[in-house]
Amino acid sequence: MKTKTIEVCLSPILFPHRLTKEDFIVVIVDILRATTAICSAFENGVKEIIPVAGTENAKKYKEKGYLVAAERDGKILDFADFGNSPFNFMKKEAIDKTIAYSTTNGTQAIEMVKEHEVYIGSFSNLEILTQWLIKQDRNIVILCAGWKNKFNLEDSVFAGALAKNLTDRHHFNIQCDSTLASMDLWDIARKDLLQYIDKCSHRQRLREYMLDDVVEYCFTPNTTKVIPKLDGIGITDISKNYSSNL
Amino acid sequence: MKTKTIEVCLSPILFPHRLTKEDFIVVIVDILRATTAICSAFENGVKEIIPVAGTENAKKYKEKGYLVAAERDGKILDFADFGNSPFNFMKKEAIDKTIAYSTTNGTQAIEMVKEHEVYIGSFSNLEILTQWLIKQDRNIVILCAGWKNKFNLEDSVFAGALAKNLTDRHHFNIQCDSTLASMDLWDIARKDLLQYIDKCSHRQRLREYMLDDVVEYCFTPNTTKVIPKLDGIGITDISKNYSSNL
Repeated sequence: MKTKTIEVCLSPILFPHRLTKEDFIVVIVDILRATTAICSAFENGVKEIIPVAGTENAKKYKEKGYLVAAERDGKILDFADFGNSPFNFMKKEAIDKTIAYSTTNGTQAIEMVKEHEVYIGSFSNLEILTQWLIKQDRNIVILCAGWKNKFNLEDSVFAGALAKNLTDRHHFNIQCDSTLASMDLWDIARKDLLQYIDKCSHRQRLREYMLDDVVEYCFTPNTTKVIPKLDGIGITDISKNYSSNL
Repeated sequence: MKTKTIEVCLSPILFPHRLTKEDFIVVIVDILRATTAICSAFENGVKEIIPVAGTENAKKYKEKGYLVAAERDGKILDFADFGNSPFNFMKKEAIDKTIAYSTTNGTQAIEMVKEHEVYIGSFSNLEILTQWLIKQDRNIVILCAGWKNKFNLEDSVFAGALAKNLTDRHHFNIQCDSTLASMDLWDIARKDLLQYIDKCSHRQRLREYMLDDVVEYCFTPNTTKVIPKLDGIGITDISKNYSSNL
């Protein structure tokens, strides 16, 4: 059996240029804050999340009576019930609900890969996701949502953390310079993650918007055991169905 | 006067998404091997280099009597006089000549930015280029040629080395996560550059093609004081005109 690979796409626009073409799982990453928020939602008992790419589409979901989480450039859109903070998704009124969710980068990246098998990765579910991925024995493409198609540090550092966790426990054939670079960045960042991340452009953007409160939460590993999976149009937590296999 | 920035584009396809839109200089980087070869050519007394994007175009230059350097995927094209090795450009027959040059990644990236002010960067001319750029007091965009639109380690590590050299001697306002990441990668790689670069995918590709001999040369800093500049269609060395200014 061929040894499996781990490839990292440092921006959504690099995804079509990936080397891994067959039999792969996508892990999508938007640490500040979409994928962290999705994990926090399922930890809180949200039923389903529907990623929505445009603001007009998000508005339509609102008209249909859905709870809508929507932001652009870190700010809540006026018609939305709440924005992109993981704390919003932990509210009581979200339990057992389906939430339509539209963000600047995260949901755009999800839209791009929706015909593949896609999992949601964040520091919050790093350990359980590692275990799950090793069990699948498939090629892995880690897709960083970045910021408006640019590289960002926090998603790349997480990609490195996940790749390191995977390669520490399972043999993968790494032929991707982005994976190697991400692992090196993680190796620097891990010594003091919050201090390292302080220099990130998006970390500074959140500070300007007074959205600082979520940062510590977003970089705290293993606060949940959810495994959010995108299936066609919706994201659900598959961990309950499979907990006996882990 | 506004503090100037340094932005790194980790792949040519990220160039249109850069933050720096006005008053910038481009430094183009393809360490293995196009930009290193261009520096070695001018060090050897080559008069001019014309970057040529397609193989058909390169053939036309051959028919017109030019010396032609052309490779794809590391291999010399059959109609070309020589390929992409910096050592080829050091031959006696190249002195005072104009060379048409077509490569897999480097000349494609040059084509993309030819309406801007573009300099050629490599470890070979790192020090003189740093001095020159600081004198210009402009915004700087470092464009990594990568490999078929993918990120690569050697170009990114060089981008980090150049950014570090520049920020050590001059105040720049760095708001680009790619620049910060490149500087961190350089900080790891600099301790033993050849050993670090040994893991790069393109380093391994050269080994397979038995083109290993150039690697040490490509990572040796400051072997030349040339400053190759792209002006419209041709690259020439401007260092002689400006040596008194440095």
